[in-house]
Formats: sequence, structure tokens, C-alpha cells
Amino acid sequence: MTYHWTLECSSCDERHDASGLPTVCPACGMPWLVRYRHHPSPDLRDAIARRGPTMWRYREWLPIQPDEEPVSLGEGMTPLVRAASIEQDLGLDEVWIKDESQNPTGSFKARGMSAAITRATLGGATAFTVPTAGNAGVALSAYATRAGCPARIFAPRTTPPRLLEQMDVHGGELIAQDGHIGDCGKASRAYARDAGAFDVSTLREPYRIEGKKTLGLELAEQFGWDLPEVIIYPTGGGTGLIGMWKAFDELRAAGWIPAGSNARLFSVQSTGCAPVVRAFEADRDRTEAWEDPVTVASGLRVPAPLGGGLILRGLRETGGCAVAVTDTALEQSQKRLAAAEGIDMCPEGGASVAALTELVRRGIVERRHRTVLFNTGAGWLYR
Amino acid sequence: MTYHWTLECSSCDERHDASGLPTVCPACGMPWLVRYRHHPSPDLRDAIARRGPTMWRYREWLPIQPDEEPVSLGEGMTPLVRAASIEQDLGLDEVWIKDESQNPTGSFKARGMSAAITRATLGGATAFTVPTAGNAGVALSAYATRAGCPARIFAPRTTPPRLLEQMDVHGGELIAQDGHIGDCGKASRAYARDAGAFDVSTLREPYRIEGKKTLGLELAEQFGWDLPEVIIYPTGGGTGLIGMWKAFDELRAAGWIPAGSNARLFSVQSTGCAPVVRAFEADRDRTEAWEDPVTVASGLRVPAPLGGGLILRGLRETGGCAVAVTDTALEQSQKRLAAAEGIDMCPEGGASVAALTELVRRGIVERRHRTVLFNTGAGWLYR
Repeated sequence: MTYHWTLECSSCDERHDASGLPTVCPACGMPWLVRYRHHPSPDLRDAIARRGPTMWRYREWLPIQPDEEPVSLGEGMTPLVRAASIEQDLGLDEVWIKDESQNPTGSFKARGMSAAITRATLGGATAFTVPTAGNAGVALSAYATRAGCPARIFAPRTTPPRLLEQMDVHGGELIAQDGHIGDCGKASRAYARDAGAFDVSTLREPYRIEGKKTLGLELAEQFGWDLPEVIIYPTGGGTGLIGMWKAFDELRAAGWIPAGSNARLFSVQSTGCAPVVRAFEADRDRTEAWEDPVTVASGLRVPAPLGGGLILRGLRETGGCAVAVTDTALEQSQKRLAAAEGIDMCPEGGASVAALTELVRRGIVERRHRTVLFNTGAGWLYR
Repeated sequence: MTYHWTLECSSCDERHDASGLPTVCPACGMPWLVRYRHHPSPDLRDAIARRGPTMWRYREWLPIQPDEEPVSLGEGMTPLVRAASIEQDLGLDEVWIKDESQNPTGSFKARGMSAAITRATLGGATAFTVPTAGNAGVALSAYATRAGCPARIFAPRTTPPRLLEQMDVHGGELIAQDGHIGDCGKASRAYARDAGAFDVSTLREPYRIEGKKTLGLELAEQFGWDLPEVIIYPTGGGTGLIGMWKAFDELRAAGWIPAGSNARLFSVQSTGCAPVVRAFEADRDRTEAWEDPVTVASGLRVPAPLGGGLILRGLRETGGCAVAVTDTALEQSQKRLAAAEGIDMCPEGGASVAALTELVRRGIVERRHRTVLFNTGAGWLYR
């Protein structure tokens, strides 16, 4: 079978075709990136506009063959909601919230899992495993079920109880253990090795990033095939940020958005776990493991993201930066937004609001910059 | 100001223009129905296909003037998700779930509230009140907040705790009291009278039904401007069923769907509160109050729906009927679907699955009938 994409190592010169069940680059252990053989024509934009409201409307930009069916629960095409109260508070012209809580399983993780489970089941996987800070586990539980496969999910005991409960609702087998997501990752890899389950950890297979890429494709479409000036993204594993960066590159190269358009990408992390912020400020090109990560924003409790180097490149190449906010600040923003805008943001979403406040204070984001904040999931899952 | 719609009594000959804050027909106390002065041209279908993924893409079919902005959180354009496990279990060719849990505030109530709060704030309302079985209260809390207005919400003490909690998250003032939604309705009306708040109870103002009508507009668009043969709808107040019936009539009259297309509408209720089923089977043209309503599906705990007569007409005119299922059956279906399809259905959604089983058993729904089941909200809100 000839696929319309191949795999290219994000760090060395390795190449791989798309057959089977690729994981990471066998030469250097770093993530694969999907490279499409041809750019889809910009004429397709018109056909896409008429397609159904899921991320699979962009199928020519996704790792799926014309005769294949995705494992889908209707993920993607989430709304952009104007945030007038933030505009007023900070003196900005245009602030939008990309509300990812309106996805199946209540978070942005649905996108990556839909893509990964689609590709993995087509590649022969029949059982899955994942380490999770919370939402990815809920998403895997639902999507593995949808594909008719069992899933084992390794989560820290400190994960908010409702997230753990939702993993159970969809029939996933939950292993709650001591430690953080890195410890869970070791357990998940050991289980994958011993039991033959396929590990869909962040960036340890090539396709979750392609699912997350649709965040960028959607933003471009929702802004009339152009980009906002500023995007603030709560960054744990960072797949969504890397995915958007990749999406914008691909869209520019294919002539789908103006050649000069650029969205500055900003990472926000918690001061209790900020490896990307520390590396960015120290001018390093990779992250170092954060000791004793502690934050209520469980999705930000990722002390050693495998894609750390890619995240840093994305921030620097687009002219963004990384900001840390306290748990107090992110929780205050979260509560304020629920009662000021009617959006039940997750703590990570609250972090993006708090980061915008800081970026405006520093003069990095100005009145005229059209800004998108990410609410990556539903607040209720954390209560 | 000339509006592109007027109000017509659903029961007598009264007419009213669209200005101010209409409630119910002053002559007979029955609900108003919105009547549009002109049918939008079918040519508009093409423009609509390119609009953003919210229910306001149908604005020419909705009570909003060209220069007005809706109070919106991105409601509508929820996915249709194929349910292969149900198809296999029941021997049907095509079963779809309209997954309304992927709305703001986690339920279909977002649609009606978006329309009602939009119209009411434009009409001069500055404070709101509503009686609720659960989800409508969460939606009002969020949409009133979005409009910058206070809301008081009257809910039975027996409402699932998470629904009550979500009302609080968005800043609504919750009054939990003894009794059922009918008792809450009395309290809400008294409060509206005394405090000057606008009561957005089901069918006690004309616009929630127009918001819910978008369920029908979306189904028609998602099926390529045609209709499925069978729609099963969990029926409490019944606004969505009446709204879809109205939508299909309007679309047929305007030539947007084939003249001969018909979706049979089926109501499902719980055996613990089944006023529509009882009236349908007794061949009555209105419902009588159900004594001691008891069901875990709180949205179905509506003993005396104001729109009972309209619901019965909708079922009969389209060739559908009403079915009661036990709480045991609806809860079993709910759990089965979460673990078989990856969809965390609410109990009311489970009822629609149980009803389909019964309708197939009776030979009323057959293999070839393309069927849509409604999942009206998220299961987690009930746990």
C-alpha cells in the first residue's frame, strides 16, 4: 500500500514508511513527524467548508487513506467564543477562547486519540495502554472502547477523582499509582512490552500530534484562512503546540494562508512545574526534568516532556515565549471566567487567562494583537 | 422596528408582534409559536454550509435581526455519531446518535437558552428566573452570566448534585426546594412577579422552542437536506420535539427538503412519569398531570408539560408514538452505551436506546428505517 505520507525523525535523518505500528525513531529515540508527499491544493478549502463539523473534515491533511474510516466520536470543530470581559479588563481589541471542553470526553485529548487509535487499529493494534495526567486517559478509554479494544490506563493517584471516574465509565482499566506522569510512563511502557499492548503516550507514536494539528487547521479556517497574532497554550506534553506550529507551516507552504502570516506561540505552565519556562529563559534547546512537580492543573504536571526541544523551537521560531503562573493565579482566573463569561474552564484554561494578563503587563501582547486563549478541557472534571 | 417574524398562538387565533417581552397567549394562556414572514430561499443552504459551527448559522430561520448579536457560547452543530453496536444488536441498517452532550454546559438546553436569553435581553430583560429539572438551570446560569444578568434557579432538592453544583459554578442563585418541577414553576412565577425577573420556563416564552428547532435544522443539513425515517426523543417538557416538528414543516414549506420527506417522531418517557404515553395511548389530545413522578432521569420528571397537546399532535401527524421504559432499562442502556460506543450518555439518552429496542420488538421500527437517537446531555452530570 502507498500512503500519502511518510515519517521523518524530528531530530536526526531517519525516515520510515507509514506501514505497521511505528513508535519513535529507532536511531535516536525522538518523535517521528508525519510528512505529506503532496500539499493539498488550496482549492480544497471550499470543499472543506461544506463538510461535517469534525476534525476529519481536514482528512487530506491527516494520516488517513481515502478508503479508510476514522475511529471518531465527533471530535473537533469546537467554537471560538469571544471573551469581552477579558478584553475590557486588559484593554485588548480582540480576545477569543477556543473552547475545547466541547469535545467528546470533555477535552482536547479527543483529537489526538481519535487520530492515534484510528491509525493504530488500522496498523494491527488490538489493545492499548497510556500514562496520563488525566484527560488523555479519559479519551483513550472512550476511543479504545469505540474501536472495540481494551485499554489500560496508568494515572497518578493524585489525579482529580472525576477524571479517574470517567476513565472507568468507558470501560478502561485504571491503574492509579504513586508518583507523576513520568512514573506512569515507565509502568505503561513495561506493560506494553509484557502484554503486547500498544502505547499511545504523547509523542511515542506519530499520530496524536496529527490529531492535535487540527487545532491549528481549525483556527486558520475560523479566522478566514488567516492566523491570529497571539496564541496562548497551556503546555504539559506540548503536543497541541507542536501540532499547531506544524499546521501553520504546512498551510503556509501549501498556500492555504498568506505567506507572511504568523501566530506567535506562547506556552503557559504552572510555577509548580515549569520545565519549558526554565529552559526558554536559560536559552537552552532542551528541557530538563523538573523535580517534585506540584500543581492543581494536572495536565501541566509533566516534568520531562519528550517534545521539550520541539516546543522550545516552536516558541522561538514564531516569536513567542514561555510564562509561568502560580496555582493561585490560574485558579482565580478559572473561577472568574466561569462567573464572567459562562465558560467552565479547566485550571489549565485558567492558566492561559493568567498568562495573558502577565504578557500584557510585560508589554509583549498589545491592544491590537488578536489573541486566542485555549481552554483545553472542562472545569467539572477537576472538581 | 419591523421584525421578520410574528407570534401566533398555538391554540387560538391570537396574534402578536415580536416587540417587547412576550410570554404566553393572553387570551388562552397557551404557548406562542414564531411565524416567519417569508421563507428563506433554498439557495441559502449553500451559504449556510460555509458558516461557523454553531446553531446561529441558521439565523434566517431564527428570531434575530440582521444587526443583532446572539448571546452565544458556541452552541449547536453537535455531531451525529454512528452506533454500530446498536445496529448489530437490533438488526438495523443505520442508527445514529445525535450527541447533544457536546454543547456548552453539557446539554441540549444550551440551544433554547441561547435563543431565549438573546431575545429577552434585546427586549429589555435584565434578570432571569427558571424552574428546572436540572440541565436548563445549568444552561440559564451560564447564559444569563454571558449576558451580564443575574439568574435565580428553582430546582427540586432531588436533582442530581452535580447539576446543582454546575448551576453555582456560573454564578446562578440556586433555590433547591421540595417537590417536582411543577412546584418549582410556581415558585419561579411568583418570583418573576415579585422581583421583575423574566421567567424563561419551557414554552412560557416563545423563543426556547426556536433554539431547539435547530436540532431539526441540523439533522436535515447533516443528512444532506433530507430527513431520517425515525427520531426517538426523550420527552420531558418536549420543546425539542415540538421544535423539530416545526423545523421540518418550515423546511418542507420552503422547499429546503423534499415535499414527501417525513421523520416519524417518537417520544420516550420513564414508566415513573409518562403523561405523554398515557395520553397518546388513551387517544386524548392533551396530557393530564402525572401523580407522584419518580425517575432517575430527572429531565423526564415533568408531570404536566405545558406543551402536552403540541407534543401529541407532533407524534400523531408524523406517524410516531410514545413509549415508556423502566428506569432499570434506561440505566442499563446508558451503561452499555458508555462501555460499547464510548459515549457517556445521560439517563434520558439511555431511555432513547431502550425505546428503540421496544419499537423494534413491536415491529414499528424496521431494518431499513434510518434512525436517530437523542443523547440530550452528558452522563457525568447525573453521577
